[in-house]
Amino acid sequence: VVNWFWRKNKRVDAPRLRPRSEEAAGATKVDLADLAPGRERFLGNAAYVQLAIFEDLGRVVATAPTIEAKEAVSRVAAASLEKFQLLTAEIRRGGGDPSAVMKPYLGSIDFFQRVTQGSDWYESVVTCHITAGILDDFFARLAAGLPTTSGDRISLIYARASYADVLANQISAAIDSDPRLAPRLAMWGRRLVGDTMLVARSALASPPASANDEARIEPVFTELIAAHTRRMDALGLTA
Amino acid sequence: VVNWFWRKNKRVDAPRLRPRSEEAAGATKVDLADLAPGRERFLGNAAYVQLAIFEDLGRVVATAPTIEAKEAVSRVAAASLEKFQLLTAEIRRGGGDPSAVMKPYLGSIDFFQRVTQGSDWYESVVTCHITAGILDDFFARLAAGLPTTSGDRISLIYARASYADVLANQISAAIDSDPRLAPRLAMWGRRLVGDTMLVARSALASPPASANDEARIEPVFTELIAAHTRRMDALGLTA
Repeated sequence: VVNWFWRKNKRVDAPRLRPRSEEAAGATKVDLADLAPGRERFLGNAAYVQLAIFEDLGRVVATAPTIEAKEAVSRVAAASLEKFQLLTAEIRRGGGDPSAVMKPYLGSIDFFQRVTQGSDWYESVVTCHITAGILDDFFARLAAGLPTTSGDRISLIYARASYADVLANQISAAIDSDPRLAPRLAMWGRRLVGDTMLVARSALASPPASANDEARIEPVFTELIAAHTRRMDALGLTA
Repeated sequence: VVNWFWRKNKRVDAPRLRPRSEEAAGATKVDLADLAPGRERFLGNAAYVQLAIFEDLGRVVATAPTIEAKEAVSRVAAASLEKFQLLTAEIRRGGGDPSAVMKPYLGSIDFFQRVTQGSDWYESVVTCHITAGILDDFFARLAAGLPTTSGDRISLIYARASYADVLANQISAAIDSDPRLAPRLAMWGRRLVGDTMLVARSALASPPASANDEARIEPVFTELIAAHTRRMDALGLTA
């Protein structure tokens, strides 16, 4: 059995902004506050993940089958790229060099990006929708465990509009016009979860120390999966 | 001999904002004010060109050889994508649907994008730098011929920072570390000009009516070429 859940020692008692990303808003019952890694580690990982999401969205724009899809998805790409710029600005604000701070995550995220690429445009749209949905949700929750001031600023980055509905609409419209897409995209959506959860797991502060730790953390991952299931349901796909 | 230069009848006497893009600033002696097509035609063409530039930049980010290059070029991509969003917002402001307004330019710009793709990352960076340099300069000048209020707003879009120096630095650094790149990139830069000028020509209001018209317009294209030559010179490449 793989240990998904790691623990850390840091405790933060200050009141915090709740992340307001769509998925987090309704669902959060437990949070990841005391599992957050250091600020720089958080930012390097979160920024490089966001860059990968943007790259995928850029490819989805460039290869879109219609000009309507191009134009629509370009808004999602812009929102993701803006998040990336804000995260790197936050790195610079702390005196860090974005490239150096992101570098430790290059290998694992490039690998993640490669295995979640998808074999056609529709799978790639599902990848953007599902992986960004889970990871933005995850990093928004994790940000609550960062030192107050910068944690609040970073929570606001994740509270920005992500236009996920644009991607959902593209997928739904595609399935409507060709119902044979549904089982393939459902299977693809299920396949994405494991790799995406690995990325989330590796962003936690430290490896798991006991069965107790795991039990404490498991509900967070259960909620991420529940949000994922709702996202798939909304597409008419079985998670 | 190809007739590059077309004429139109419209005359606009109102005072205008000068385009402030870097290249235009120092060089403009004549402008394209009385060659501007209708507002919607301008916006459809300019927006789809900008989308193509963004797509190329997105690919350059995704395929960059280093994380430093990724991060640097992402700023250029963000600036281009922002211009695209502002241009489509301007289409919506006039009651148009961006996809419908851009559609007439899909064939020619997709073709342009295909033939200017480049065979490796370095050629693709040169493509982004050279074609965006010429076309942003060109559309900035052309915007001066649009109806005052929206023309001024559109000029401001082109006056925004484009971070062209980021691309120039990437190219110069690549040549510094491998001087054998220089002749190949110089040749590629020269090859781009013809196709880019065709895109510019087709954005003018109407086909040429007389040798007089051509003589009147030629200086504008001469200036675009002069700016291109300065851009190539700055890279240490012969135009």
